[in-house]
Amino acid sequence: MDIEKARDIIVDFIRERTKEAGVKGAVVGISGGIDSALTAYLTVEALGKENVLGIHLPELKLTPAEDVLDATEIAERLGIEFKTIDISGPLVSYMEAIPDSGQSFNHANGNLKARIRMSILYYYANIMGRMVMGTGNKTEILLGYFTKYGDGGVDLEPIGDLYKTEVREMANMVGVPADIIDKAPSAGLWEGQTDEDELGISYELVDRFLGLLLEGESPQMAQNTLGLTAQQRDSVVSRIHTNLHKQKAPPAADLDSLRGSYITV
Amino acid sequence: MDIEKARDIIVDFIRERTKEAGVKGAVVGISGGIDSALTAYLTVEALGKENVLGIHLPELKLTPAEDVLDATEIAERLGIEFKTIDISGPLVSYMEAIPDSGQSFNHANGNLKARIRMSILYYYANIMGRMVMGTGNKTEILLGYFTKYGDGGVDLEPIGDLYKTEVREMANMVGVPADIIDKAPSAGLWEGQTDEDELGISYELVDRFLGLLLEGESPQMAQNTLGLTAQQRDSVVSRIHTNLHKQKAPPAADLDSLRGSYITV
Repeated sequence: MDIEKARDIIVDFIRERTKEAGVKGAVVGISGGIDSALTAYLTVEALGKENVLGIHLPELKLTPAEDVLDATEIAERLGIEFKTIDISGPLVSYMEAIPDSGQSFNHANGNLKARIRMSILYYYANIMGRMVMGTGNKTEILLGYFTKYGDGGVDLEPIGDLYKTEVREMANMVGVPADIIDKAPSAGLWEGQTDEDELGISYELVDRFLGLLLEGESPQMAQNTLGLTAQQRDSVVSRIHTNLHKQKAPPAADLDSLRGSYITV
Repeated sequence: MDIEKARDIIVDFIRERTKEAGVKGAVVGISGGIDSALTAYLTVEALGKENVLGIHLPELKLTPAEDVLDATEIAERLGIEFKTIDISGPLVSYMEAIPDSGQSFNHANGNLKARIRMSILYYYANIMGRMVMGTGNKTEILLGYFTKYGDGGVDLEPIGDLYKTEVREMANMVGVPADIIDKAPSAGLWEGQTDEDELGISYELVDRFLGLLLEGESPQMAQNTLGLTAQQRDSVVSRIHTNLHKQKAPPAADLDSLRGSYITV
């Protein structure tokens, strides 16, 4: 992958798609991690710093202070408008409003946090007439390793065709600070969570595995090539199939057979 | 349109898609309006009443009491589990958390309410291992007359290929109470809001206009056929184009040209 060319394509993509949509600016959620840092850098390159709002959305009791400082540092380096908004208030109010909520529902609570962040990013996008930039990479998107209508709820996915390992390369190239690049990737949904622990495989390996599958290799062949365990192979393949719905618009029951042939707009 | 056959297709669709996803049940937001009433009826027909949870999500200070009573009546007629959850608490907490929020941001506030409802429906879907049924109809979906990642944030759109006028026909057929069918359609985003006022055209006319466009007629021809004003024509065409992005997964910058030819999974 020619990472310089990829950067040009992504910057053009952001510029063209915002122009087509008739908006001048973007809102980016900046977590303190590498994906959103790179997205912010590329968005500023495409639209100019005066047209990018960065929002850090910590859960102040849980988010490591390091992330708050890293998010702030990125915004300062880029010279963009920046806000930090604690999601704890809305989170507590949902728990109070939902009679069946509970602290033990890790999965539901993690998804809820991602949806609160999405709702706040869109609030700003709406009042400023801007688009929400996604920060998902190709690895996460293929694995469905994101919350539907949460961090997956965005207008554009600028780095959505870059594998996680390629995100690291490009982040290095554009000058994202090294400590952000070297941090263990985490969705931050609970304390001490890391992506690689949860996926049960390193990003190096899963990226190569996904690449082989996309070249048409069978899961069995790709497993052998890379020396994966059967469990790693099955876990990745199962994530792809189970989560495919997250990459698509919700399907409707198709009644075309009752209407005759139609042209779709 | 053979409305009995359409009903069979939709019921099969719900049954098959939930089975494919390995879930037995569904969560449906029941607003007190016709679309969600019909969706609830069809979902119960497909999955059985014991596998459907209805949730009414009023903003208690704004939602007409009629809607609360109508939603309750639907749930009682269907014999499904039913909850009413006031969204006012989460709404206030967002307004407090977002420093730039304001009562005058009708559009942003309306979208936020739809996203709060989505977040609560998914909370239940997550803890119960169920799917969220959408209640969008073909007219709304084509016009983009819904909130992205709000009421548009669902797993399936059972009635998504039925025009609003066909929704009325089918609702009559399955036995939705007449007062719900006859109520003026409203997204309920502010007091006294009705869809037809906001769209500037009746559902009868817009459905026929959309039908002609989908058959390949030009907007100008379809306008003449139906006797619409130029403003009605332009407003509908503009909604379709402006909101097309709401029907699609967020696009990524395409880097295939840098990788060689790939098979997509």
